Amino acid sequence: MNAVLLLSYDGTNLSGWQVQANARTVQGELEEAIRRAFGVCVRVTGSGRTDAGVHAAGQVCNFPLAEGIGIPPSRIADALNAFLPPDIRALESAAAPEEFDACRSAKKKTYRYSVYFARREHPLRERYAVRFGSAPDLARMRACADLLEGEHDFSAFSATGSSVKTTVRTVHRIDLSPWEDGYARGLHIDVCGGGFLYNMVRIMAGAILECGAGKLPIAAVQAALDTGDRELLGKTMPAKGLTLLSVDYGFPLFEGEGK
Amino acid sequence: MNAVLLLSYDGTNLSGWQVQANARTVQGELEEAIRRAFGVCVRVTGSGRTDAGVHAAGQVCNFPLAEGIGIPPSRIADALNAFLPPDIRALESAAAPEEFDACRSAKKKTYRYSVYFARREHPLRERYAVRFGSAPDLARMRACADLLEGEHDFSAFSATGSSVKTTVRTVHRIDLSPWEDGYARGLHIDVCGGGFLYNMVRIMAGAILECGAGKLPIAAVQAALDTGDRELLGKTMPAKGLTLLSVDYGFPLFEGEGK
Repeated sequence: MNAVLLLSYDGTNLSGWQVQANARTVQGELEEAIRRAFGVCVRVTGSGRTDAGVHAAGQVCNFPLAEGIGIPPSRIADALNAFLPPDIRALESAAAPEEFDACRSAKKKTYRYSVYFARREHPLRERYAVRFGSAPDLARMRACADLLEGEHDFSAFSATGSSVKTTVRTVHRIDLSPWEDGYARGLHIDVCGGGFLYNMVRIMAGAILECGAGKLPIAAVQAALDTGDRELLGKTMPAKGLTLLSVDYGFPLFEGEGK
Repeated sequence: MNAVLLLSYDGTNLSGWQVQANARTVQGELEEAIRRAFGVCVRVTGSGRTDAGVHAAGQVCNFPLAEGIGIPPSRIADALNAFLPPDIRALESAAAPEEFDACRSAKKKTYRYSVYFARREHPLRERYAVRFGSAPDLARMRACADLLEGEHDFSAFSATGSSVKTTVRTVHRIDLSPWEDGYARGLHIDVCGGGFLYNMVRIMAGAILECGAGKLPIAAVQAALDTGDRELLGKTMPAKGLTLLSVDYGFPLFEGEGK
């Protein structure tokens, strides 16, 4: 069986997705839980790596599992949750088509970058969002987001030193959603794209916010797209504000998905 | 000077408000920060105690501080934050009227009880909310909340063994606010009252949710109010879903409050 999982994790105390010696990683913890639950050593394939400190609400991974484990595929999640640490949970499980590969089959991914607006640190917000001193102007942020949507060479929006074949990526959509919940205000920046360069969403979020704050001219963002010059943009925003929301494969993987 | 602070804390790793030997408490950490920042040993008065695991977005406390500390009252927050652990922060500070007492002067308090609806634990929700298996019926929850609003003898809504002069309290208002944020759904139950018995909000939240789930008849809630029988109600909900949102003194304590 080609088992597939929908995963959520709190990245605060995790050293990212990929297995490392002497560090707690999502892949490492999952492979250990699979070994303990089913007695097999497998390699888990994620839709992509997430960095240390990055969270996930809808990461997807797959791994091979023998038939005849004695439980329906939809209950694999429960079997693994019994062995996973509390900061990692399988939300759903299923049997995927044999050719399904969580990484190569992915069509789109949506990441959320979250900030809250406050003069001083708020302990109830610090874990999953980053403080931004004052509320940026929404229209200026929207103008920056409009510029970034579409197919572009995003080499200026990538950590230096990363080597990829092409730095052209398509950003399908950027949604800016202000929120207010009774004691704090903030913004979700949801970025849906076909694929992302290393640190791309965190650099995009920083550019959008600094445009909104009037610290980065929109012309500088255009120049960064045109020239690929990382120096034209602001800083890379911290990992803890980033959450992988969902991975879209073009078809539903789990029973009841979308309900 | 009668210094007053607006406080937020993440209660997860705190043993509640009140000073205890060999335990991290909000009062203890505050008094230690005041000692380190200003070199004085004082007793801090909170608007009330919060239990181990309970969070605060707007706790208020006051303490005596000599004049001539060299910084304006609005900057006391920053001086203390330099010495407070990251799970406790002063959001605002000011000089209050001499007769102000954070406990005795309080007119109303608002607590929030937060739940999320999911079949399995969600690591990004578990810290500040409690999982409730399925979404309860809003109309039935509202009917229960309507019953609890007003002045009543809330002895059935109190942990057994607590001794107070009277168990009559006034609940000014209960707001039920469903939320949905792109990957999870839940409910905030905001309870504003003149004062609360021990565990009262956590027992009220449980009763409202169980009415909504059809597990507790509304007649049982009425009977609990009439008879004071704690056994008629459901369980006390866990501490981590509870947040002290605000304390109302009838006048603004901090510059820019309400903006």
